[in-house]
Amino acid sequence: MNVPLTPLRFLRHAERQYPSRIAVVSKAKRFTYAQFAERAARLGGALRQLGIKAGQRVAFIGINSHRLLEAYYGVLEAKAILVPLNIRLSGPELSFVLNDCGATLLLVDPQFLPLVDSFRRELPLLHTIVQLDGALSEDWVAPMLYDRYLEAAPSSQLDIMTVKEDDTAEIFYTSGTSAQPKGVMLTHRNIYLHAMETSHGFSVRNGAVELHTIPLFHANGWGIAHFLTMLGGKHVMVETFDPVAIFSFIESEGVNYFNAVPFMATVLVNHPRLRDFNLSSLERIVIGGAASSPTLIREVEQAFGCTCFSGYGLTETSPALAAAQSKPELGWPNERRYLGQATTGYPFPCVELHIVDADETRLPENGVAIGELIVRSDGVMKGYWQQPELTAEALRGGWFHTGDMATIDQDGYVTVVDRKKDIIISGGENISSLEVEKAMLAHPAILEIAVIPVSDARWGEVPKALVVLKPGAAATEAELIDFSRSCLTHYKCPKTVIFVESLPKTGTGKVLKKNLRSQYEIKETATTAIA
Amino acid sequence: MNVPLTPLRFLRHAERQYPSRIAVVSKAKRFTYAQFAERAARLGGALRQLGIKAGQRVAFIGINSHRLLEAYYGVLEAKAILVPLNIRLSGPELSFVLNDCGATLLLVDPQFLPLVDSFRRELPLLHTIVQLDGALSEDWVAPMLYDRYLEAAPSSQLDIMTVKEDDTAEIFYTSGTSAQPKGVMLTHRNIYLHAMETSHGFSVRNGAVELHTIPLFHANGWGIAHFLTMLGGKHVMVETFDPVAIFSFIESEGVNYFNAVPFMATVLVNHPRLRDFNLSSLERIVIGGAASSPTLIREVEQAFGCTCFSGYGLTETSPALAAAQSKPELGWPNERRYLGQATTGYPFPCVELHIVDADETRLPENGVAIGELIVRSDGVMKGYWQQPELTAEALRGGWFHTGDMATIDQDGYVTVVDRKKDIIISGGENISSLEVEKAMLAHPAILEIAVIPVSDARWGEVPKALVVLKPGAAATEAELIDFSRSCLTHYKCPKTVIFVESLPKTGTGKVLKKNLRSQYEIKETATTAIA
Repeated sequence: MNVPLTPLRFLRHAERQYPSRIAVVSKAKRFTYAQFAERAARLGGALRQLGIKAGQRVAFIGINSHRLLEAYYGVLEAKAILVPLNIRLSGPELSFVLNDCGATLLLVDPQFLPLVDSFRRELPLLHTIVQLDGALSEDWVAPMLYDRYLEAAPSSQLDIMTVKEDDTAEIFYTSGTSAQPKGVMLTHRNIYLHAMETSHGFSVRNGAVELHTIPLFHANGWGIAHFLTMLGGKHVMVETFDPVAIFSFIESEGVNYFNAVPFMATVLVNHPRLRDFNLSSLERIVIGGAASSPTLIREVEQAFGCTCFSGYGLTETSPALAAAQSKPELGWPNERRYLGQATTGYPFPCVELHIVDADETRLPENGVAIGELIVRSDGVMKGYWQQPELTAEALRGGWFHTGDMATIDQDGYVTVVDRKKDIIISGGENISSLEVEKAMLAHPAILEIAVIPVSDARWGEVPKALVVLKPGAAATEAELIDFSRSCLTHYKCPKTVIFVESLPKTGTGKVLKKNLRSQYEIKETATTAIA
Repeated sequence: MNVPLTPLRFLRHAERQYPSRIAVVSKAKRFTYAQFAERAARLGGALRQLGIKAGQRVAFIGINSHRLLEAYYGVLEAKAILVPLNIRLSGPELSFVLNDCGATLLLVDPQFLPLVDSFRRELPLLHTIVQLDGALSEDWVAPMLYDRYLEAAPSSQLDIMTVKEDDTAEIFYTSGTSAQPKGVMLTHRNIYLHAMETSHGFSVRNGAVELHTIPLFHANGWGIAHFLTMLGGKHVMVETFDPVAIFSFIESEGVNYFNAVPFMATVLVNHPRLRDFNLSSLERIVIGGAASSPTLIREVEQAFGCTCFSGYGLTETSPALAAAQSKPELGWPNERRYLGQATTGYPFPCVELHIVDADETRLPENGVAIGELIVRSDGVMKGYWQQPELTAEALRGGWFHTGDMATIDQDGYVTVVDRKKDIIISGGENISSLEVEKAMLAHPAILEIAVIPVSDARWGEVPKALVVLKPGAAATEAELIDFSRSCLTHYKCPKTVIFVESLPKTGTGKVLKKNLRSQYEIKETATTAIA
């Protein structure tokens, strides 16, 4: 018997087995699993009443709240596809994405209504806008508030057997430093299996309490939602990053797990009020979104008295692929352990990660060879929305190509050293721009740095550093190059340094290296010159 | 991207991520996951060399050892189907089963060779017999020992992408109290998803140590093997039930979990040497195979200092469906907790259990209404081997019909009260023969009892008890009926009692009630008479 694999089964299970448990804590509201499931079923009914048909896209612009969680299931109850959007995108970016996926209905937090108003005439397919919260503004297009829709709607639970597990359930847009955002299609099966496997990788306990510190529209945040529901855990919503609010939530809700980007973790461990709260319920903190450092891992473990390690995932892979727990059989002493727990990690159950060269040949897993990280797993997307060529390219040979360059050591730990397009190939050696940046950031005068390749007649490419100095600090090009030679192998050191006022960035804070590359050198021409 | 769901991925994962961990402890042998995977791959190579083709059946007759675990994966590496057989079956039963599945190759422990020799001329399809262990007997048909095959064979790991997840991977034969044994076809997908989901239900830790006290050819035993491999746990093999050996294993191997049938648990808690061993590593004991009692749950928890609850499963469902952990939100005090943990349990993640009446209408879940337990889950078999009519009957309406009569209470806990065919319908009320038997077993003179329906002109059916007295004990029919009235509602009490020397049983010790029914009354005739 094949029962369709769909995350709807997670909420059905929790509704039936844990009806009285608190499912969601969102501002002053608390909903049990019985209430959460009822609200999701009513959202399904409301969407059907609003004319939403199977396969149509329902977009969501909002901060973390019970409503986004309800949409995770309620949109699927209506057989539609959920498209959670990044609230940090600009108006033109949001407009592009909404048009690209052809969303017919938009659920939106009131603070984003003026933004949506600025471009809604560019969206011919969008026929309904539902205001998620707040007081309804008379002059606004949204005919009703979300909660009133729910009150009026019939409860509509789908017959699980009618779901096709290979149908798309969610579309997430990649933040796109290199091109227009692409819509990543995740199927019901992707999401179901990702949740089953990742929660084994993280050893998530039944009934655990998770603090959703990361926005649920983010790769680093959404994967958790489904397995927590399956295991009847408590979702505690964090709207914005406020250290004292986080400490307070941990104490009052008995939080067991949370995720943080390195910046957040650094702020938390150095916060003066850290020791004013009882944080003893914490069991695990995962650092994701960017590379961690062994120092940060140690600081977090010591500050919070629980385990801390890196996690790794991508929008295209549902997202989680690996985490850097230490393997007890390796018997690492503490300092080695921090080093290991700051790597990219080792794959979750039944995720396969390999590194390959430009010819797709597998490279040795010796901790030295650098190749592109490729993945085969149940979470790998169906493809990019309406982009068959990009899909075929990304999934060539039956493996998803991450675009990350990495090593894998003999113990199975992966370390991502750079984005493929940012790697610098000098005299046949791969140089990780991230490694150079990380080493040079130790210089006291440097606030921010980006290292890019520029063409060189002898070496093919050599590293160039763009540096933003700290306010009031001073340094010369020669001084910084000398500094780099004190901590890096010679061929990895920048040959030139340019001081800039700021670095160009995406809405999510990633440095736009492609802009820098085209500004400082037209790569294509340079390559031709060498050849 | 859809990667085929197959348990082979579990061993691949453990081989790559936990190569140095001890995977199997079997008598004096210890194998790491690297060695275990290598041996399974060589078994795959050996089977191919012996001419085994995709889809052919490879049978296994043996006690718990590393070799049965190797067959779980090695037979699949050869794209063949594994058929583990119950060693307690008689020669004619084994012969029937081997012919029914058309096994072409048999792996067999030396102690069963004479038995196999007695019927091997009746097995025209069986072309190869491999002796699993011991010294090779010159006059025997097995041309080589298992270990020598493995040494000589090439390592053959299948390309996972060539597996079809809906193909049958294993066939288990049901013990069959009512008909010829039926072959239950479990697919690669069944086994993969069952392992993922059941291990969440049991909250199995990565790297945990399981004592395989139950034979791995048994529903109660085999389901554990796959999820333990996936999580890099240690399989500790128990060959026969020896309490001191079990205590000793727990202490020396640091065992965390084991399963037991009620009889085994009773012997263990009452064993005089229990307190001579350090059993502090134990975390969980699951009672399966038959109904437990609250008293036994309490005794096991107190004796072993760990949690103990019932588990429930069927050959047709891969097997596990439910376990009776207490839900913390119910806040049960100890005595209520023992009662709850002795029920059949509540379903594992994404397993759906309902009770229905004879018209397949769902019954209320109020702890009182008794109906047939039906199940929809990822572990439900593909069907019975070469039995399309029986398959369609068992899976009618898209639900597997367990043949167990049960209640479900408002907290989601199922309690199986009887086998459907053994239930007694008296004056429109369902009487559980098991309930009557359990109540009357409290009488000091009764050693064994079977309660069956006999026809009655007024009530349709009434209960009749067949009783085996303890050696030297005496009791009269009137005395036992009086006793039953002291502990059971009147209509549930046997109207007649017959004293017998013994009760007819299957090879696995189940009472053959159908034999008793036909001996004491021809049901069909009786039913006609009433109608």
